[in-house]
Amino acid sequence: MPTSKQLLKRIQKNEILAMESRFRANFINSISGFKSVGLIGSISKENKTNLAIFSQVFHLGANPALMGFIVRPDISPRHTLENIEAQKYFTFNHIKEEFFKKAHQTAARYSKEVSEFEATGLTPHFENDFVAPYVKESEFRIGLKLEERHDLSINNTIFLIASVQEVILNEEIIEKDGYLDIEKAGTITTSCLDSYHTTTRLERLPYAKP
Amino acid sequence: MPTSKQLLKRIQKNEILAMESRFRANFINSISGFKSVGLIGSISKENKTNLAIFSQVFHLGANPALMGFIVRPDISPRHTLENIEAQKYFTFNHIKEEFFKKAHQTAARYSKEVSEFEATGLTPHFENDFVAPYVKESEFRIGLKLEERHDLSINNTIFLIASVQEVILNEEIIEKDGYLDIEKAGTITTSCLDSYHTTTRLERLPYAKP
Repeated sequence: MPTSKQLLKRIQKNEILAMESRFRANFINSISGFKSVGLIGSISKENKTNLAIFSQVFHLGANPALMGFIVRPDISPRHTLENIEAQKYFTFNHIKEEFFKKAHQTAARYSKEVSEFEATGLTPHFENDFVAPYVKESEFRIGLKLEERHDLSINNTIFLIASVQEVILNEEIIEKDGYLDIEKAGTITTSCLDSYHTTTRLERLPYAKP
Repeated sequence: MPTSKQLLKRIQKNEILAMESRFRANFINSISGFKSVGLIGSISKENKTNLAIFSQVFHLGANPALMGFIVRPDISPRHTLENIEAQKYFTFNHIKEEFFKKAHQTAARYSKEVSEFEATGLTPHFENDFVAPYVKESEFRIGLKLEERHDLSINNTIFLIASVQEVILNEEIIEKDGYLDIEKAGTITTSCLDSYHTTTRLERLPYAKP
């Protein structure tokens, strides 16, 4: 791609505001870059499993081990949020190429009576005493506990902070210094709301010093 | 990679707590998946430019157009945060393969007198009236304004909410429905703290319906 200044277009705030709403949603959902994406597994008090794809997910801290999740207010009905708040425990499962279409399909608005596991053909897997379901097809699974909920008044989204209870993975991807080769595990990434991508490592770089 | 249950290892909270601290940092920084990554450009009241790589970055909402950033408390000296709070305006620039080593090098702890632009050989670019510097080598640049700061007591990190003021990009990557082909723009992704990856699109999937 050319990098000369003349070929870049500057799109300002007023133009973004003037975009048709679906166009703007795609445009703005694209700008943060490639995203962490995974399936959140949860279960209701009535033991109904739920599975939902999330890409507003991020590393919050290593000690204590914490992850952050943004939940949109307009996901209706919000079964995932209800289940997480009721049970406190939930899972986050990386997505592999082999089942990304099924993972995407969990975004459909199924009624409360339908488990997305059954609807999409993904398999719930329970790990001993952990209450929430993992995705058996996933080779990288995280067990989480809800610690805090922050309601963000600026756009009515909900910011959840969860602590890492356990990580289930293929031991072969753990490198000597603790780095996990998630590419080797088959983890994929996403852009915007509907595009899925595999990755190719360029390089691991040494710790930067002046 | 094999997916049979027997080959997956379950690593529980007590084992994570018992990890050597650098090992745990790498381990936990790997688990959220592939991350959005970019260079934050900022400028001090004394007109000293600053450039820093960030991967705790996420889409917060499309209307209004907002992004979230997590700033670690132990980045000392925290020039980026100081500049953002002083000036309110800053930039986020996607990273391309052509300059990912220079981008990584901005993580080194330079003194306040040194601009990471000069130290790494990246080029500051000012866009008319926008106060903060963009990265000329980047083909996807976002101008942002700080809207809110939330101090997270759970781990002393700082959560910044910023509104999108402008997006500077190659017009050719804008698809008809507003989707931006950031892969075509050369945007890369990261895993853990030091691994960089290019991407290959699997597919854009249609809107999921039950």
